[in-house]
Amino acid sequence: MKKIINNASDVVSECLKGLARANPQLCYTEQLEVISCKSKTPNKVGVVSGGGSGHEPAHAGYVGKGMLDAAVAGNMFSSPSPDRIIKGIQEADSGAGVLLVIKNYSGDIMNFDMAREMAEMDGIRVESVVVRDDVAVPDSTYSTGRRGIAGTVFVHKIAGAKAETGASLDEVKAAAEKAIANIRSMGMAMTPCTLPAVGKPGFELADDEIEIGMGIHGEPGVERTKVLSARETAQILLDKILDDYDFTGSEVALMVNGLGGTPLMELYILNNDVQDILAQKGIKIYKTFVGNYMTAIEMAGCSLTLMKLDEELKELLDAPCSTTALTLP
Amino acid sequence: MKKIINNASDVVSECLKGLARANPQLCYTEQLEVISCKSKTPNKVGVVSGGGSGHEPAHAGYVGKGMLDAAVAGNMFSSPSPDRIIKGIQEADSGAGVLLVIKNYSGDIMNFDMAREMAEMDGIRVESVVVRDDVAVPDSTYSTGRRGIAGTVFVHKIAGAKAETGASLDEVKAAAEKAIANIRSMGMAMTPCTLPAVGKPGFELADDEIEIGMGIHGEPGVERTKVLSARETAQILLDKILDDYDFTGSEVALMVNGLGGTPLMELYILNNDVQDILAQKGIKIYKTFVGNYMTAIEMAGCSLTLMKLDEELKELLDAPCSTTALTLP
Repeated sequence: MKKIINNASDVVSECLKGLARANPQLCYTEQLEVISCKSKTPNKVGVVSGGGSGHEPAHAGYVGKGMLDAAVAGNMFSSPSPDRIIKGIQEADSGAGVLLVIKNYSGDIMNFDMAREMAEMDGIRVESVVVRDDVAVPDSTYSTGRRGIAGTVFVHKIAGAKAETGASLDEVKAAAEKAIANIRSMGMAMTPCTLPAVGKPGFELADDEIEIGMGIHGEPGVERTKVLSARETAQILLDKILDDYDFTGSEVALMVNGLGGTPLMELYILNNDVQDILAQKGIKIYKTFVGNYMTAIEMAGCSLTLMKLDEELKELLDAPCSTTALTLP
Repeated sequence: MKKIINNASDVVSECLKGLARANPQLCYTEQLEVISCKSKTPNKVGVVSGGGSGHEPAHAGYVGKGMLDAAVAGNMFSSPSPDRIIKGIQEADSGAGVLLVIKNYSGDIMNFDMAREMAEMDGIRVESVVVRDDVAVPDSTYSTGRRGIAGTVFVHKIAGAKAETGASLDEVKAAAEKAIANIRSMGMAMTPCTLPAVGKPGFELADDEIEIGMGIHGEPGVERTKVLSARETAQILLDKILDDYDFTGSEVALMVNGLGGTPLMELYILNNDVQDILAQKGIKIYKTFVGNYMTAIEMAGCSLTLMKLDEELKELLDAPCSTTALTLP
């Protein structure tokens, strides 16, 4: 295993400490593994997300003005415990309640729900939304129903921007729900990834083999196939997305996401093909995001996400934000 | 070879096309492989950089307000030809002359110099600076003298910010030279990278082996060693940098750069150790940048860069910029 780490047991805390030390506007709560904003806006709805580590920059990289108020990290590929999530809720609360953005994994659902109940007993109003954007498989290793993947970043953006407008908790939740209803994603993996504490890859792929629809923890996808061209990859992923949801004639936000080990060059090449195919289908791309937004440690591969936009979603997507992983002026 | 590409011969053009299609404020000149800003500020000094492809987001990712006016791409790991560079100069020229920021590789020096002479014959005033920030080796496979690596991104930032102030070409050049004189970098590689047209890795590293001081094209470094911890990596790279230049008591900008295949988590872990060591040495970090700024396709590894700051450099570093790879509000 070749990784730039110290001890496998410290990777999450050292990562978050290193993030906070690079970004003095962020606050790191040791042991509870929470990253939050140092400055708070009174009576703004707080937006909190989180989940297992290994998906960096998700989620701590999205903490900042216009997106998340706090992110809660679990251990590698493991849901954060309720005490951590409660701390995240407390950090994000400034009097107007807190929205939790949860990716649909059973452990996350259970722990975020427990934390929500406990925070409410402490007098903080908490609502939650669950992102299920991955169209690859109906159920999966760690989820009942569809998995939440890179589309979650769009939900952070929309909910965070809505909260900045001074909207109420119900309104922020409604905007997040609207985004979720209009987001679809699908991914593909070319190489496995290695959990530091395990020391060897979580699965194997032959030298000429990829897996379509694989999850961001290496969960099984739809099929294994020979290496495809960028054009074929774009076509297969978009076919499945467009089969699931009718984006024809719509304006969309597009995310071409890398899983950590795929260089930016390949993501741009893929984007070029995606843009061609969407144009042929009469789908208008309003804004494109290309980069490593939701990763699987050092996995090579990609995912595509489309979010159908209306006027409100466009405005919220365009609103300024300032986080370590996404800044819009 | 597992890459998301179509034809190996088209990777550069499809990458730049994909970049421009994701960022409508950018303009792509086909065949000449130039990315430039669609909107120009009259009588602002133009800043141009470029070099071989495979270092994405460098350099096209730094085109935008406050950094580069144009970036010129060569083929993979190959210097752009003079005709391409001339086009970049023309795109960047808005009446006040153009500064070329060149990484110190023999091919780049030769081609940028030829382009400069030809552009001057066409009546555009052109100056150039050469970045030689890599302290690893005195001469290298493709360079006489030190190589230019990730510190080049700081030069883009400083020169671009100075140009935005309305400074003259001589003043922009002087700011860039000041930055260059105060920048030192050093890197480490854990895995090789594969040129698409070659189809196999450019060199081999054993499963437990890394190379200290390796260049961003896989050029030999200082030594091969067993895999090191993040702390040891930070110590070795910083020792060599601090031996070369006395940063004691200074304020510095720090860049913890990934080479493409190393996940963000590891870069933050490394940053945590770098911050400790610099604090012990009495070096004050003014601003930290962690990410994939100058890569070597999908190579796993990292580099560290320090730039000593004075008041002018701090102001220029802090100035707003808006590019696809770096946005400061």
